[in-house]
Amino acid sequence: MYIGFSEAETFLRNCKDAVILTHRSPDGDCIGAGFGLKDILAELGVRSRVVCHDVFPARYDFITKADEEEDFEPQTVIAVDIADPQLMGRYEEIYGSRVQLCIDHHESNKNYAEMTLLREKATAACEVIYDLAQYMGVRVTRHCAMSLYTGIATDSGCFKYDCTTPRAHEIAAEMMKRYDINFAKINRVMFDIKSRGKMLLESKISGILEEYLDGRLAIIAVTQDMMREMGVKLEELEGFAPMTIQLETAEVGVLLRQREDGAFKCSFRSANDVNVSKICQALGGGGHAKAAGCTMSGDIDDIRAKITDIVRRALDNE
Amino acid sequence: MYIGFSEAETFLRNCKDAVILTHRSPDGDCIGAGFGLKDILAELGVRSRVVCHDVFPARYDFITKADEEEDFEPQTVIAVDIADPQLMGRYEEIYGSRVQLCIDHHESNKNYAEMTLLREKATAACEVIYDLAQYMGVRVTRHCAMSLYTGIATDSGCFKYDCTTPRAHEIAAEMMKRYDINFAKINRVMFDIKSRGKMLLESKISGILEEYLDGRLAIIAVTQDMMREMGVKLEELEGFAPMTIQLETAEVGVLLRQREDGAFKCSFRSANDVNVSKICQALGGGGHAKAAGCTMSGDIDDIRAKITDIVRRALDNE
Repeated sequence: MYIGFSEAETFLRNCKDAVILTHRSPDGDCIGAGFGLKDILAELGVRSRVVCHDVFPARYDFITKADEEEDFEPQTVIAVDIADPQLMGRYEEIYGSRVQLCIDHHESNKNYAEMTLLREKATAACEVIYDLAQYMGVRVTRHCAMSLYTGIATDSGCFKYDCTTPRAHEIAAEMMKRYDINFAKINRVMFDIKSRGKMLLESKISGILEEYLDGRLAIIAVTQDMMREMGVKLEELEGFAPMTIQLETAEVGVLLRQREDGAFKCSFRSANDVNVSKICQALGGGGHAKAAGCTMSGDIDDIRAKITDIVRRALDNE
Repeated sequence: MYIGFSEAETFLRNCKDAVILTHRSPDGDCIGAGFGLKDILAELGVRSRVVCHDVFPARYDFITKADEEEDFEPQTVIAVDIADPQLMGRYEEIYGSRVQLCIDHHESNKNYAEMTLLREKATAACEVIYDLAQYMGVRVTRHCAMSLYTGIATDSGCFKYDCTTPRAHEIAAEMMKRYDINFAKINRVMFDIKSRGKMLLESKISGILEEYLDGRLAIIAVTQDMMREMGVKLEELEGFAPMTIQLETAEVGVLLRQREDGAFKCSFRSANDVNVSKICQALGGGGHAKAAGCTMSGDIDDIRAKITDIVRRALDNE
């Protein structure tokens, strides 16, 4: 059942001993939303614990290590930023079918909870939670503000992407006026810094980008041989697809990563108007208009030719 | 003379045929401020022309190519985002000593104009100009909003840096509500895309980053021999200093570029609390706390050792 702020307030004010679920491969938004909500519940006198299938990455320590974990048997189950119970990982089996309240901003939310507070237009789940706290008149502590800012900033690419709402900017402005938080430091940690290994890998990966169709298509293809040579595993190349459309002329970018069985994982990105979801559907995959994927088998040169051909046609049809 | 919005309004409402000066090596803020002000003057029925020592980079075409240049003999001289007349390049000789109004946000402003509207805390000159337009009740057109947003976004690193004010966020929110502008596209052009050459160069440059002091100091040293080998000129390595402090452990980063005469241009960056201006002053240079520079002569290994030594002491004194 979809609910509004009023029902969510009633629920939160009357719940006790809550477990707050976040999605696997946790990002700034689910972590910020989880711990931000925990702070809000604490203001209401409700104990809670944030859980995740994976360990929270160390760069979020300033959010996740704020206080001691309390031990209690959960009476209340809340999910934040989780569109589908499958994303709970090992917590799906325990809690997946008995989530009482889900707070989310994903259009694709499966409506799996008893009550779902969904704001599809919101930049981040953290934006929904901040607005809920304002609606309820609950005090937002400095730690809560830092957590929620982090989620809004990371999901919007630091206010860079299409999904950034005016409200996201307004919340940032309110927080800056009210709290003494080093926002620039949070942003540096979230966006700018990287390990030496990541820097070297980026350096190698961007060096092998290839241009096709007068630069309108960029392909980065990494075979198993190349991975062995670079000393890198397929999983470590996760997150490199956006690099393909950093090329100024690129309309479409594709990252090809060869699996051990020889087939290629293909991650498509669109810089402007080409719908890569349609392209990937035609190739047996799927996804979103600007980010989609599929798997292709065969010789790498044939795959390149096939991709070039289908992207050329998509560009012609624009 | 420092003035407020009221005097600036009186001046702008009564001026005619204005030339608007921007600084050499133009960036998003001086370009946005120049053309944003031109739009505001147009609303007041005042003709104006934006000039610059250098050609405006092509990525700003959506701002600079909005309408035809009108030919007239300037009666009014206005400078935007120019802290020092020296930054006018060849326009210094013509207009440097007769600027009537300067609108700026640099603390270091030399107060060279008859009237200076200075807002040192503002994120960007564009923020000052937007607030001035609001104060005056002048209509801000879509083109004007795009120009001013660009200046605020570029000077703040897309709302990422310390200099970002709550007002910058509020203005972005107001603009998003009021205008149908593809902000994400502007941000993509300003922050994400690069030429193939730039990508390859970045790839090479980040590959030669060296770590010292357990990674707390990062140095990228490029000799003339290396530049010849990479086929790159010293000027093309402008803008690479921030890359040094992308290394997650780095407190201080230094980009060393060897000039043709053998000496090294040293660009220091501080990630956190070390004041690199003090370090550079000790080495005969100067600058800001987080970004400073100096020139060092001698053998590259001696220079590395000297830098490592002085940075170690600065870190110890923290």
